[in-house]
Amino acid sequence: MTFREKLTNIIKKKQSLLCVGLDTDIEKIPDFLKSDPEPLFAFNKAIIDATAEYAAAFKVNTAFYEAYGAAGWSALEKTFACIPAGTLKIADAKRGDIGNTAKMYAKAVFEKLKADAVTLNAYMGKDSAAPFLQDPEKGVFFLCLTSNPGSQDFQYFNDGKHKLYERIALTVNEWNGNSNCGLVVGATHPEELRGIRSLVPGLPFLIPGIGAQGGDLEKSVQYGLDENGTGALFNSSRAIIYASGDKSFARAASIAAKDTRDALNKTKRI
Amino acid sequence: MTFREKLTNIIKKKQSLLCVGLDTDIEKIPDFLKSDPEPLFAFNKAIIDATAEYAAAFKVNTAFYEAYGAAGWSALEKTFACIPAGTLKIADAKRGDIGNTAKMYAKAVFEKLKADAVTLNAYMGKDSAAPFLQDPEKGVFFLCLTSNPGSQDFQYFNDGKHKLYERIALTVNEWNGNSNCGLVVGATHPEELRGIRSLVPGLPFLIPGIGAQGGDLEKSVQYGLDENGTGALFNSSRAIIYASGDKSFARAASIAAKDTRDALNKTKRI
Repeated sequence: MTFREKLTNIIKKKQSLLCVGLDTDIEKIPDFLKSDPEPLFAFNKAIIDATAEYAAAFKVNTAFYEAYGAAGWSALEKTFACIPAGTLKIADAKRGDIGNTAKMYAKAVFEKLKADAVTLNAYMGKDSAAPFLQDPEKGVFFLCLTSNPGSQDFQYFNDGKHKLYERIALTVNEWNGNSNCGLVVGATHPEELRGIRSLVPGLPFLIPGIGAQGGDLEKSVQYGLDENGTGALFNSSRAIIYASGDKSFARAASIAAKDTRDALNKTKRI
Repeated sequence: MTFREKLTNIIKKKQSLLCVGLDTDIEKIPDFLKSDPEPLFAFNKAIIDATAEYAAAFKVNTAFYEAYGAAGWSALEKTFACIPAGTLKIADAKRGDIGNTAKMYAKAVFEKLKADAVTLNAYMGKDSAAPFLQDPEKGVFFLCLTSNPGSQDFQYFNDGKHKLYERIALTVNEWNGNSNCGLVVGATHPEELRGIRSLVPGLPFLIPGIGAQGGDLEKSVQYGLDENGTGALFNSSRAIIYASGDKSFARAASIAAKDTRDALNKTKRI
């Protein structure tokens, strides 16, 4: 089964377009958890257990774990291991390096963490992506148009025919021989999202920015999905995992995840 | 002291432009080391001890350690800790992510690993770079024109005035208010290197590709240095650290490092 088929199946089976982002910051987790011997993992396990019913995917941002060195990597591995079967595991690593190094990164995310998909930066070109694309079951979401203010600096660079983010979308579409490529497109750019969807009707999108970053949920769903209504995952991190800062954090995250899933599905039907 | 001043001082004091790249692959280290409880660290320590005399800097490629999960990160931390004072420590991480995530990455490389500098991908723009640039003592080398074949895919994208890699060079020059920015420019592109040096005369370059990748050492030195002869570090990884695959590996690495340093200095004087 290709990554694309796996994604479609999970979205349909779980009736969810939601990706819950585990950008777990030790300073933002409830105080009572900070004395736990493994606070990042304890928090993540509670969040995963409380939200997995409503999530098609979990996206784990590796930076938040690397900041704690080897202990952080241990928390990262345990977090991936406790994401239930039938839910996609995405390593949000935004890597990109030359061939022999890329092979090592691919090993880190697909073999050590057993992730289903990874985010990559395409700047270094095809040989930096190839080691991640060999296995059709493993997916890659390439950075296309990101949700942050700095997306203005280089991503709109224009050769008179296309902007750089459009050139990346078209090139990634050419790399999609194994049906395992996708794009990261921020919900903070709904009009551009519509344009990218028309350029590459078949690629799945990972769409961050609908939560704390203030992206437009309705327009993102309207413009981001493909014609089968399964071509995108919508990520919310902080608005779900930090919905409450006290003992009720897992229950609050569960409600926030359910509400977000429902809002996505409702918009989809409009 | 700014990062730029630190770099200049070390190059002058050690009379070396050499950066030794610790891209340590467990499959390539001598067999007798593979039974060591910490084979990556044991190898690195021997290489560092044998080559530090000839190296202005060590560049540690984080991918090669992440591939081994928490144990790999432990080897990474111990490797950074045993690089002697008076030699630059560069974390070759090629990171790039939005502001709140970038802060975590900056913490990982500057606080946990105590690196002097890091490599970053500029694609996500200024807010992704800002957390790394706050401390003038810590340097950032941004990917400009990379040494691999895939550099052709996006880096030459042209807006009619500049190619993308030139636009990145000019923009990074604007971010250099703390005198701590630099660029990664591959030795495999000597003519472009000359062009970039004339665009940004003051930025230091990290130049990979002079060893196993077959870049042109003489032209890279001729075109890459600034007018003071201190504006670049030349990285060699595989040609030095795997100079021999048997018990004499450290001695062979020492000779290869000395020869490379001497070749760089000789070319500099021509």
